[in-house]
This record gives sequence, C-alpha cells and structure tokens, in this order.
Amino acid sequence: MSESHTEPDTDVEADTDELARRAERAALRLANADEATRNEALRSIADAIRDRESEILDANAVDVEEAEQLLADGEYTQALVDRLKLDETKIEEIASMVESVAEQDDPLGETLAARELDEGLELYRVSVPIGVVATVFESRPDALVQIAALALKSGNAVVLKGGSEAAESNRVLYEAIVDATADLPDGWAALIEAHEAVDRLLELDDRVDLVMPRGSSAFVSYVQANTQIPVLGHTEGICHVYVDADADLEMAADVAFDAKVQYPAVCNAVETLLVHESVAEAFLPDLVARYEAAGVEVRGDERTREVVDVDPATDDDWDTEYGDLELSIKIVDDAYEAVEHVNDHGSKHTESILTEDSETAKTFMTGVDAASVFHNASTRFADGYRYGLGAEVGISTGKVHARGPVGLEGLTTYKYYLEGDGHLVATYSGEDAVPFTHREPDAEWGLGGE
Amino acid sequence: MSESHTEPDTDVEADTDELARRAERAALRLANADEATRNEALRSIADAIRDRESEILDANAVDVEEAEQLLADGEYTQALVDRLKLDETKIEEIASMVESVAEQDDPLGETLAARELDEGLELYRVSVPIGVVATVFESRPDALVQIAALALKSGNAVVLKGGSEAAESNRVLYEAIVDATADLPDGWAALIEAHEAVDRLLELDDRVDLVMPRGSSAFVSYVQANTQIPVLGHTEGICHVYVDADADLEMAADVAFDAKVQYPAVCNAVETLLVHESVAEAFLPDLVARYEAAGVEVRGDERTREVVDVDPATDDDWDTEYGDLELSIKIVDDAYEAVEHVNDHGSKHTESILTEDSETAKTFMTGVDAASVFHNASTRFADGYRYGLGAEVGISTGKVHARGPVGLEGLTTYKYYLEGDGHLVATYSGEDAVPFTHREPDAEWGLGGE
Repeated sequence: MSESHTEPDTDVEADTDELARRAERAALRLANADEATRNEALRSIADAIRDRESEILDANAVDVEEAEQLLADGEYTQALVDRLKLDETKIEEIASMVESVAEQDDPLGETLAARELDEGLELYRVSVPIGVVATVFESRPDALVQIAALALKSGNAVVLKGGSEAAESNRVLYEAIVDATADLPDGWAALIEAHEAVDRLLELDDRVDLVMPRGSSAFVSYVQANTQIPVLGHTEGICHVYVDADADLEMAADVAFDAKVQYPAVCNAVETLLVHESVAEAFLPDLVARYEAAGVEVRGDERTREVVDVDPATDDDWDTEYGDLELSIKIVDDAYEAVEHVNDHGSKHTESILTEDSETAKTFMTGVDAASVFHNASTRFADGYRYGLGAEVGISTGKVHARGPVGLEGLTTYKYYLEGDGHLVATYSGEDAVPFTHREPDAEWGLGGE
Repeated sequence: MSESHTEPDTDVEADTDELARRAERAALRLANADEATRNEALRSIADAIRDRESEILDANAVDVEEAEQLLADGEYTQALVDRLKLDETKIEEIASMVESVAEQDDPLGETLAARELDEGLELYRVSVPIGVVATVFESRPDALVQIAALALKSGNAVVLKGGSEAAESNRVLYEAIVDATADLPDGWAALIEAHEAVDRLLELDDRVDLVMPRGSSAFVSYVQANTQIPVLGHTEGICHVYVDADADLEMAADVAFDAKVQYPAVCNAVETLLVHESVAEAFLPDLVARYEAAGVEVRGDERTREVVDVDPATDDDWDTEYGDLELSIKIVDDAYEAVEHVNDHGSKHTESILTEDSETAKTFMTGVDAASVFHNASTRFADGYRYGLGAEVGISTGKVHARGPVGLEGLTTYKYYLEGDGHLVATYSGEDAVPFTHREPDAEWGLGGE
C-alpha cells in the first residue's frame, strides 16, 4: 500500500498537542502574574527587539529576497512584499508599540459587579484572562509581536502562527520574546510553522479558548468553518452610508467622500451609498463629479442612472467589498428601505446615516443590525484607536463575546468569586428559608486584607 | 436507483430554513419593540396559559399516557414521566413565572459605556438583543414557556424544539404563546418538532445567533460538536470542596455536607472532597459518619482509606459527575495540589475552599479555572436566582460571552452608536491631525431629544 499524501503528519500533531498542553498549564500560572510582572516582561520584550535589530533585519532580508523572487515569478504581489519588509524605523515602531501596551490600564482584576447575597456572603464578578488564545496571521511580522504583547498584558498564553513568507523574521522575533520572558511560566508563548499544525490546533477546542485569524476574508472564513473554538475576527466590511431626505447635504457629501476616499483599502470604508429619492437630484451630480475627480469608479442602480451618468450596478455590487476606489449607489424610497438593504447586504460591521431628523436617525440606528452605527459621521471612525480602546485586538463581526472594534477587554472573561463565612444553601431553602438580601456591597474583591 | 434512508428530508429542511429566515426578519423588528410592548405581550402569554388550562391538561394527559406506556415497557424512567406531568398548580406556576419575567428590569437600551471622541462626537455602547436564539430541550414542557418568555423580554426571536415525549403539551403551549402575541412581528417564535429539523437548524449559523441546549451532558455535547453557532450551556458539573489546613473544621463539615446532601442531583453539588493531609484525621471520621448516616456512598484514595474505612476510589471517580448520594475523597499535600487536581478534573463550573487564611484562599481562588470559585461557602450557591440575576437563562461552562449562572444579560449583546455632526476621519489623520479627546460624556444614548 502506498503512502497517501493526505496521511496526517503524526509528529506535527503530537508536537502541536504538546505545545497546546504546555500553553494551557502556563496560562493557569500566568493568570496569577501581577500587573508589575506582566509590564516588566513587556518592557524586556521591547528592549530585546531593539537589541536584536541587526539579527531581525538579517532574517527579514532572507524572507524579502525569497518573496521578491516569487514576486518576479508572479506568485506574490508587491503589496505583500511591502508588508513583509522591516527597516530600522519599523523595528523601533514595534518596540514602542510593545511599550505602549505596557502603559495601558490593567484589564485584569477589575470588579465588574458586586452583590451582597446575605450578611457576610458577598459575590464579585472579576475580570480574568480567557486562557489560551491562538492567532493565525499572514505576512506582517509585526502582527506576531503585537498579538504576543496583547496576550501577555491580559495574562493569556498565546499560540502564534505566521505566514510562511515571514518564517525567518517570525522565528527571530519569537526567540527575542521567549528569551526576554524567561521568568514567565514556561510555554506561555508558542510558535507553530507547519500548515498541518494549524489544522491540528483548530481541533484542540478543549485547550485553546479563542482564535484570532488575521488575513483575507477567505482565510478568516476558512478558520471559522474549521473549528469549534470561538473565533474573534471579521471576514468582510460591506459598509453603507445612507443620505436621508432630511440630511444636511453639504455635510453628507463630505462624510460620503471621507468614508470612501480617505483610505479605501480598509474594512470600514464605505462600499454602497444609499440616497433618499427626494434629495438624489440635488445631491448626486456634484458628489459623483467629486468622486470621479478623486479616481473613484462609480456604479449605480437604474434610478441613480436617471440622475447621473454612471455605469450600471449589478446585483453582485451590493454584496462586494471593493477595498478600492469603487462605489455603488442605490436610490431608496425611505429610511425603512435603507435599513432593509443594509440588513440584506451588510456584513454587520459599520453603517452610517446622515440626517437632521433625530427620529429617522433612531429608526435607522436601532433597525440596522451592525456592530457600529453612526449618525452624521464617517464610517471610517470604526476603529479601536479612534474609539479610545487602546491597543486594538481586532474587529469582530460576531454577535457574542466581543463586537466591533475590540480592545484588551476582548482577551478577558470573568469569574465569580463568592466570599462567605460557612454559609449553607440549606439555610435559604425549604419552609423556613432565610431570604437573600441582594444588596450592593461597596467593597471590591480582594479578600479584605488586600 | 433505490431511495436511500439517509437522503435528507428536503421538506423539513426547506421548512426549517423558512422559519429561521422569518425569525431573522422578526428579530430585527422585535429589537425595536419598546419595554411596555414586550411586557404587555408577556402578560398576555400568562393570561392565555391560565385561560387554556383545561386544553393544556388534556394535551399533557395524552403525552403522559404514552410516556407511562413506555415506562411500563422499560423505555422511560419514572423521573422522566414526573418531569413531564402538569397539573393546575404547575400551570399557575408557569403563568406566574412569565409574569415575573415581565417584572424584571429591561435588559435592553442600557448605556454600558460612553466616550466623547471629540467635541460633538460621542460614542455609546448600548445593550441590544442578540437576534435569533434557539433552544433544544428535553421533557419539561415548562422549559418551552420559560425560554420563550426570556427571549421575548430580551427582544430576541426564538426557535423552540422540545422533546417528542412532550409533543402534545408543547404544541398547545406554543399555540397559546403565538395567539397571545399576535401583535408582535410574525414568526418571532417558532416551534420545530422533527429531529431532522434540529440537525438543519444547527447548520444555519448565518441566521441563528445562539443556541441553548438543555438536557443530559451527552445531549449538550452533541449540540456543541454539531454546530458553528455559539452554544450557551454546560455539559457537566464536577465540583470540588477543598478543606485547607487552616479551615474552621466545624464550618468545613457543615459546608461539605450541604454541598453534597442538600440536593445531590444538581450540577452544583460537590463530587470530590479534597482534604489537606494535616487535618484529615481530625476532620474525616466524623464527617464520613455523618455522610453515611445520610445515605452517601463514600469512596477515597489510598491516603483517605488510612484514615477512614471507605471503599477505594478509582481513577474514574475523579472524572465522574455522580448526580447522586455518592462522593469521592482525596487527601492532598497543600492548596497547590488541590488547585492542580481541580484544574485536571474539574469542569470549570464551581469550586470552593474552606480556610481562615486569606492568602491561601486567594491562591486557590485565582489558581482554579472555573466560572465560580467560593471561599467558605457551599458550591450549591452557584445559581442565577441565588446570585440575584433574576430569571436564569442557563449555566455556562464556556469561557467567552457569558459564564457561570447566566441571567437575561446573556441574551443580549451590544452595539456602538456614534453621534456626530458631520465629523470626518480626514480631520484626525495626517500631519495636522486633530487629537481625540477621549473623555467621558455624561449623557446616555437617546439622541438628545429622548
């Protein structure tokens, strides 16, 4: 019998199982590392990255050389090669980013809720790490360092899988991280390289608590479809701007322009402009001219094409994330039709209404099913930094756990701590049951003496 | 070609797809139903259940008769038949339960966080329904009404699948709910009956946002393994009580007794008692005598059997949820060994330490990976009612979204609302970027005029 090429690589599987097991044990101990220990470890990582600048650049040069060969062969794009390339400035940016994560407020040990159940019986809901987080990302080597730093800040063990195109860079960066954090629980950060290791990792839902894929929509969809582990991420951003009958049209034009042109490659840029039929003639001709002057390819539905001379939009346009200077326009009868279009075609990411009528704004904002819904503001504001969340862990289009731009809080969960004095449930049951008080205590959890 | 018996029942699939599609549309409209509307609908359901008492009892009698036949054939247990059976008192309890859900605070529209990004640009994180929740439960017909009530209170559409043993009762209860809520969006509550419909439903992760299985561990595990939809539930409760060297031994005995004997069939009852070696001789003989007097079958590890005359515990004992008057005892060297045992064998449900030493308590409580960790209190307190969460949606042993006993909050997520005045991202980018203020505004979201 010949060996099948689909036969599992049992060595890779065993290695992956072992590192996940070690990560799980490390996570339990890392959860108890205090804030000072975690921040000191982060500063050591920043120092190590600066110290190893030349080593990192040498490794990166190997990756870039290979990538340029594949670019010449037509297998890679210039954009990929650009994202891959490190220089002194980028390395300093990476080190500073790690230091800025250390500067952030501690996401752990926060008393999120407290309740007295009875005299001397107090319940606290306190933020704790999730456990083991895994990330699978493409090209950018800085993603490895960023995720490791965010995981460490939030007390989580982390399993890292980078793209093969950045293998040498990732290995050197990972070694810098591990060497700089020798005092932390062994195995808190693990690097995997083989594609089979990812497939195995995605099966380990008993050991890995959260997976954060970063990359193309197709890649995130692949991860979502192939794991029982909760996924924090987003596949696409099909965002809309709706210009209502009662919009300030000058404001609307500026916002619609900003939402498309300011940075068209990102997920929070607008793809489809919805315009109330009563303002289409006053609004569209100038705006379309401005778009076209900025190099935007504009397409429209039939009613739009009665107002402006643009190419016809097909059904596919409404479901496409262009990620480029392209835009589709549809004329609608009212805010309800706008809501319906958004809910049929949007990706639950970010939506915006332009109107001076607060009732219409409310109809749109509560009716639309999206993580972020804006009134008189550009969709481009949907971002962890702009939201003031500190470092951004990711943007989630899932509806449970964390939604929209996600900060460090997205890497935490909570635990209930109950402090009693020998309290029994029998006391609160049956005929002579003592009632619960369910009052707010004023203390935070810390076992009194802290 | 003969028809295969595994051929999908395309009618059931199409019906399931259609009702999920209708539920999704209904959810978007139900999300905008105000508190008064939702509470009024709940009171109508309570009235309808009281009005149809005799109809419900007649349907239930058919289910009970069939179940008793299957009990006689040895296919059902007496416990199942007991859970199935309704009477006047139970029907009144169901109606009152629905009214008490109406009385609870509105979980929707709460401003969870607010931040000024710049003057006139304010971000609000507001609680909203999740969308479409599905529940699959066994026997008890009251579960159908309870989940429908909780879903409605929290503005979610709901798909209900009950056990076939309660089919007649469920159908009549479901009709009462639908007839009483004719003013709500059509399709907000759907009932499915076929097993194939469940399998199809579990595939509809693009339409169903959360699934809550209720039933045996095997059943919950089946659901978890067969869907990409987030699951809120728990498979088992392997809970521990650890009696430390510095425990008040009288208190420890009372708590250990309460945790096992007060109600042994439930998931928060203790299965394994961990005892510090230094107190084992003083502690165990009296307690074991008390357990045995109460009918508890006690097993112990080797060291335990040197102190008390009990049957030997096998490796299986540490991983078994007895759900009955059975208990295993293990002697440990210190709190660290207790933590390790709990993390190796526990089910992340509820754990308790008995000690007068607050440092040891902290070591155990922060080291143990469980949703609820108690100090000097019985594990039996882990319960939504006792926690003061109001109606309990379920108990979750997952680590993300909702954890431990889950109240109505577990059926909500959040949405970011941003209120601007034509704000553009271009203003905050590039060379002359305006800085963000990231201050706390004092308003709640409501579009000013509200």
